[in-house]
Amino acid sequence: MSRFFSEKYGSLTPYTPGEQPQDMQYVKLNTNESPYPPPPAVIEAAKEAAAKLQLYPDPDCKALTAALAARYGLSPDEALLTNGSDEILNFAFMAFCDPDHPIVFPDITYGFYPVFAKLNGVPYTEIPLKADLSIDPADYVGVHKNVVIANPNAPTGMALSLAEIERVAAGNPDNVVIVDEAYVDFGAESAVGLIGRYDNLLVTQTFSKSRSMAGARLGMGFGCRSLIADLNTVKYATNPYNINRVTAAAGLAAIENDGYFTENCRRVAKTREETKKALEALGFTVLPSKSNFLFAKTDRISGEVLYRELKARGVLIRHFTQERIRDYNRITIGSPEQMRILLDTVRAILEETA
Amino acid sequence: MSRFFSEKYGSLTPYTPGEQPQDMQYVKLNTNESPYPPPPAVIEAAKEAAAKLQLYPDPDCKALTAALAARYGLSPDEALLTNGSDEILNFAFMAFCDPDHPIVFPDITYGFYPVFAKLNGVPYTEIPLKADLSIDPADYVGVHKNVVIANPNAPTGMALSLAEIERVAAGNPDNVVIVDEAYVDFGAESAVGLIGRYDNLLVTQTFSKSRSMAGARLGMGFGCRSLIADLNTVKYATNPYNINRVTAAAGLAAIENDGYFTENCRRVAKTREETKKALEALGFTVLPSKSNFLFAKTDRISGEVLYRELKARGVLIRHFTQERIRDYNRITIGSPEQMRILLDTVRAILEETA
Repeated sequence: MSRFFSEKYGSLTPYTPGEQPQDMQYVKLNTNESPYPPPPAVIEAAKEAAAKLQLYPDPDCKALTAALAARYGLSPDEALLTNGSDEILNFAFMAFCDPDHPIVFPDITYGFYPVFAKLNGVPYTEIPLKADLSIDPADYVGVHKNVVIANPNAPTGMALSLAEIERVAAGNPDNVVIVDEAYVDFGAESAVGLIGRYDNLLVTQTFSKSRSMAGARLGMGFGCRSLIADLNTVKYATNPYNINRVTAAAGLAAIENDGYFTENCRRVAKTREETKKALEALGFTVLPSKSNFLFAKTDRISGEVLYRELKARGVLIRHFTQERIRDYNRITIGSPEQMRILLDTVRAILEETA
Repeated sequence: MSRFFSEKYGSLTPYTPGEQPQDMQYVKLNTNESPYPPPPAVIEAAKEAAAKLQLYPDPDCKALTAALAARYGLSPDEALLTNGSDEILNFAFMAFCDPDHPIVFPDITYGFYPVFAKLNGVPYTEIPLKADLSIDPADYVGVHKNVVIANPNAPTGMALSLAEIERVAAGNPDNVVIVDEAYVDFGAESAVGLIGRYDNLLVTQTFSKSRSMAGARLGMGFGCRSLIADLNTVKYATNPYNINRVTAAAGLAAIENDGYFTENCRRVAKTREETKKALEALGFTVLPSKSNFLFAKTDRISGEVLYRELKARGVLIRHFTQERIRDYNRITIGSPEQMRILLDTVRAILEETA
C-alpha cells in the first residue's frame, strides 16, 4: 500500500478470481466457462470488427442494446450493456446503495457482493442460507433494505422459482431488488418478464456462460426505464466507452444465433445431470443445480484435499474456505469428455486415499 | 431519475462523449481517432483471440503488462492496464482522492476530470490557464492537493516540457501528481522516465490515439510499485476481468509493432503542421499543438457557426461551449485527404458567409 492510498479503502479486500495457473495444461473446471466455443458467426463478427479498431465504439451500444431488448421483449431503454456483469452489479451498488440505503444478500453467494459493498461504503447484512443451503425467500420480504440475490445462487447452483423471486420484489417496494441471473439459462426461470410490473426490479445477466463469451466481457442489466436511466448516468460518469467494438459486434452476432446457445445450454444441463448421478454413485452429496456447475461433498475425502489432489493430477475445480461450505467443491460442467476425466480422476483419488 | 437513485449523485452531470451521428457519412474529425488502421499483425492477433472467446481473459493481463513495461523500461509491477484510460483515471480518483484529499486541474482541460471528482465525492479546484491558454507550472507547485494535468493538454494541444512536469511532481511530494499523456506520442515528452525518482507520480496513457485502437479500449498507468499496487486493489474490487481477451491480444501485437505506430505519429505530426499553416493562411489563430488535433479560432466566423456549417456539409469537428474557449474549435488531424476536404469546406463557408 502506498502512503497515498485513501483511508476509505483501508480494509478493502479485493475479490479473488478463480485461479488461472500457467504451469501446465489443466482440465479447467474452476471458472464456469462454457466447454463450447462461440459459433462461427460470432467469431466472424469479431474478426470484421477488429479491422476498424482505430474508431471508437458507439458509447450507446445502440445496435446491440436494441437487439438484446427485442430478444427479451423489452424496449431499448429498459436494457444496459456493461463490461461484464461485474460492472453492472457495481453500477447498481453505486447508483442505489449508500450509507442510508444498505443492502442484504445471502451469507453464501457470489463473493463479489461484500466487496462491492465495502468498495462503495455500503453497510450490508448477510442472511444465512437454510441448513440445506437454499435461500428462504421469506427472509427477504420486507427487509427495508436493498436486496441482491443470485438466481441460481452461486456456488450452490440452487434456484428460486419465479413466484419466489416475485415475492421478494413485491415484498420490498421501496427498495431495489437485484436478481443476478448469470447462470439462469441452464435451467432456472428468468425474472425479466416481471420488469413491467416492478419498478424496483433490476435483473442482471451475462454473455460469459450460456453464450460462450467469458473472454469478451459482456454483461447486461434489465429494469424499468428510470432504473436504467440512473445506471446510464453512472456509466457516463465512469466509463462511457465501456463496451469495445469487437465485443459489441460479437454480442450482436450471438443474439442473432440464439438457437446455437439454447442447444449448448441443453447439452450442459444433460451433462450436469449425468455427472451428478455419477458423483452420487461415488458417495457424493450433490446439491440440486440449475446452473452450469455442481456443488458437491463427500465424507470420503475433505473438500480441500480433493481439490488439491485433483489439481496435482491436472484437473482444476474450485474450493472455498468459508466455514459453512468448506466441505464442498464447485465443479464446472465441461464437455462429456472433460467430465469423464474428472470422474475417473476422482475415482482414482478416492481409491488411493481410502 | 428513479426514486431509488442515491442522493450522492443528485448533481452528477455525466461526461458528454463526442457526437457519433449515424444520419450520414461524415469526415469525422471530432474524437481524435487515428486516420490509420492498426497494422495487419494487430488485426490478426485480434482474430485469433476471437476464436477462444469462451475462456476468461487473464485478469492479471500478464503477457501484455510485461511487454508494455519492457517497452518503457519499467518492471511489470510498475504498470497496469485498464478498459480505456478513463478507467485508470477513475481508479486514480478512487484510490488517491477523497474529501480530505482534494484535487486540482486546469479550468480548461479534459472534461472528464470534474466528472470523476463529482462521481467520487472529491472536492476540486480549477486553476485558470494563462491568457494564452497555456498551463503555468508555477501554479501547480506546493498546492498541497493532488494534481492531474493532461500533457499535452486538451483541447488546446499545448504541452509542458519534461522539466516543467518534473517541477510539478517535485513540488508536491505529499500528493499524487497524475500526468495524463493520452496525446504524448504526437510530439510531447513523456514523464515515464521520472517514475523511478518520484513515488507520487502516476503517468497514464492510451492505445486509442497513437496506436489506432480507440475501438479496443485499452489504457494504462505507470507509477512506482506501491501506487500501482493500490490501483490494482481498486481494480480487483471493481472489475478484475476489465481487459477482454481480444483487446489484450491486439495490445500485445501493437507493442510488437511499435515502428508502425511511430511512423504514423510522424505522419500525423506532419499533417498537423501543414494544416496549421493552411488555417493560419485563412486567418485562423491556431495554438501550438503537440497532439493529434488543432485548436483554432478566427474573427471571420464564430466557433459555433463554423462547427454547425461544417457539420451541415459533412465535416465533424468539436465545439465546446465553455466561455473561455467558445470561439475555438478542436479539429482532429485526419489523413491529408481528409484535411484537404476540411480546408476546402472551411474556405467555402468563409466565402459564403463573408
